[in-house]
Amino acid sequence: MKKNNTQNNDPIGIFDSGLGGITVAKALMKLMPHEDLVYFGDTARVPYGTKSRESIVRFSVENAEILMKHKVKIIVVACNSSSSCSLETLQAQFPVPVIGVISPGARQAAAATMNNRIGVIATSATVNSGAYDKFVHVFAPQAKVFSQACPLFVPLVEEGWSGKKIALDIANEYLKNLKKYKVDTLVLGCTHYPLLKNILRQAMGAKVKLVDSAEEVVWEVKRVLQEKALIKDGRAKGKYEFLVSDRPQSFEKIAQRFLGDKIKIKLVNTK
Amino acid sequence: MKKNNTQNNDPIGIFDSGLGGITVAKALMKLMPHEDLVYFGDTARVPYGTKSRESIVRFSVENAEILMKHKVKIIVVACNSSSSCSLETLQAQFPVPVIGVISPGARQAAAATMNNRIGVIATSATVNSGAYDKFVHVFAPQAKVFSQACPLFVPLVEEGWSGKKIALDIANEYLKNLKKYKVDTLVLGCTHYPLLKNILRQAMGAKVKLVDSAEEVVWEVKRVLQEKALIKDGRAKGKYEFLVSDRPQSFEKIAQRFLGDKIKIKLVNTK
Repeated sequence: MKKNNTQNNDPIGIFDSGLGGITVAKALMKLMPHEDLVYFGDTARVPYGTKSRESIVRFSVENAEILMKHKVKIIVVACNSSSSCSLETLQAQFPVPVIGVISPGARQAAAATMNNRIGVIATSATVNSGAYDKFVHVFAPQAKVFSQACPLFVPLVEEGWSGKKIALDIANEYLKNLKKYKVDTLVLGCTHYPLLKNILRQAMGAKVKLVDSAEEVVWEVKRVLQEKALIKDGRAKGKYEFLVSDRPQSFEKIAQRFLGDKIKIKLVNTK
Repeated sequence: MKKNNTQNNDPIGIFDSGLGGITVAKALMKLMPHEDLVYFGDTARVPYGTKSRESIVRFSVENAEILMKHKVKIIVVACNSSSSCSLETLQAQFPVPVIGVISPGARQAAAATMNNRIGVIATSATVNSGAYDKFVHVFAPQAKVFSQACPLFVPLVEEGWSGKKIALDIANEYLKNLKKYKVDTLVLGCTHYPLLKNILRQAMGAKVKLVDSAEEVVWEVKRVLQEKALIKDGRAKGKYEFLVSDRPQSFEKIAQRFLGDKIKIKLVNTK
């Protein structure tokens, strides 16, 4: 791959398997309102969390290539499944810093736990990768990590049923083992899960700390940009570009759910 | 596209967005045990039912091209979302007969209803296409069709929760309007739904007839093969080839759920 001339006034690139990563984009806009952003959601191939490691790596490399065409200065992998399977490949293959959501979430969980028992809820791909276990142990070698895949949470959020009794029933079913293991900290290891926070709090009890990886990663992005002298010049408000590989059936409804307000989204062709 | 020399000893081609269409493959094996089959499941891009019409058409054309490389004599579109969005395009573009699941299911529903009130449950793509409404009216112009998208049913089946109380709660939520409309016939307009038959019967009541499109399409395939003199010679047992574009995380478990027994499945590269 050709060396990219990274420049501090180039945009921050973010990709996700779909629209969930918009929560990361929003957090970045809030923390660094002057930075330009290019977001790519691979809505044609969403979800990633049920697919194989090999496919997730291949999709992630293609997504990063799309962002590189937009001359991004840093790549933020907003998707947990993609971060947990492809981060090392992306870091080896692309000439800009690549930041995933796993390490920031794991560090925050390690800092938050008092009893060294940490729960992680995520997709099957993320759970099977063992990435959270690995990174939690970097920051808290003595901690025990209990993971639970929750494949129904993403469609539940996209259906707009986060507030229904059924959502609580499903959460209780998935979380019963984590409650039994007495975790005092729960990592929301998928960008959709923060939209289930109320339900998760009800299911786990008010004392369990919820760690939102999407919230944590933006601090890591800021730290890396500062360290590498990549902060944008001037005080002009950032420009935002949102790209997707498909406009799914319920696109407007789902985008609205994540964004809260209207943003113009462009369709791009992928493989 | 080059004209294909179709021959009666070539295999039957079947594609689906994922593994749900294996139910169609199994029904074909039972009805015509001498025929060879090539099945392709686009597991890398599954599901289709939430995606746009344009993407579904593009994916379907690519899937049909994969089957044509295996010299199939007929293409069976086992996926309802794909049948409802792309059948006309495929029929125009490929030199072999292309059969979808919508028309056979609609015909069966039109024959089964006594009160001319037919319910259809399907993905968002299928419901939005209006394909069942259109085909039911071909066979029963006076019938009323009531459609309901049920996006949580597919992940529910893939999670293996078809027998749980939560599945019944979700079914009751989705079906409450169809019950109110007093449909006497319900089309299961997605290849995953037959695995929820018990739950659907409980939710709708024993008097409502359930129409399984996957069961109906195989009769249409046989009829077309006979009509076009494409029935395989001899009495040797058919050979089966199963291809997928990804081996998802829970692949073995899901394949097992649909097949009931072990079949060797090969990974092929798609875009």
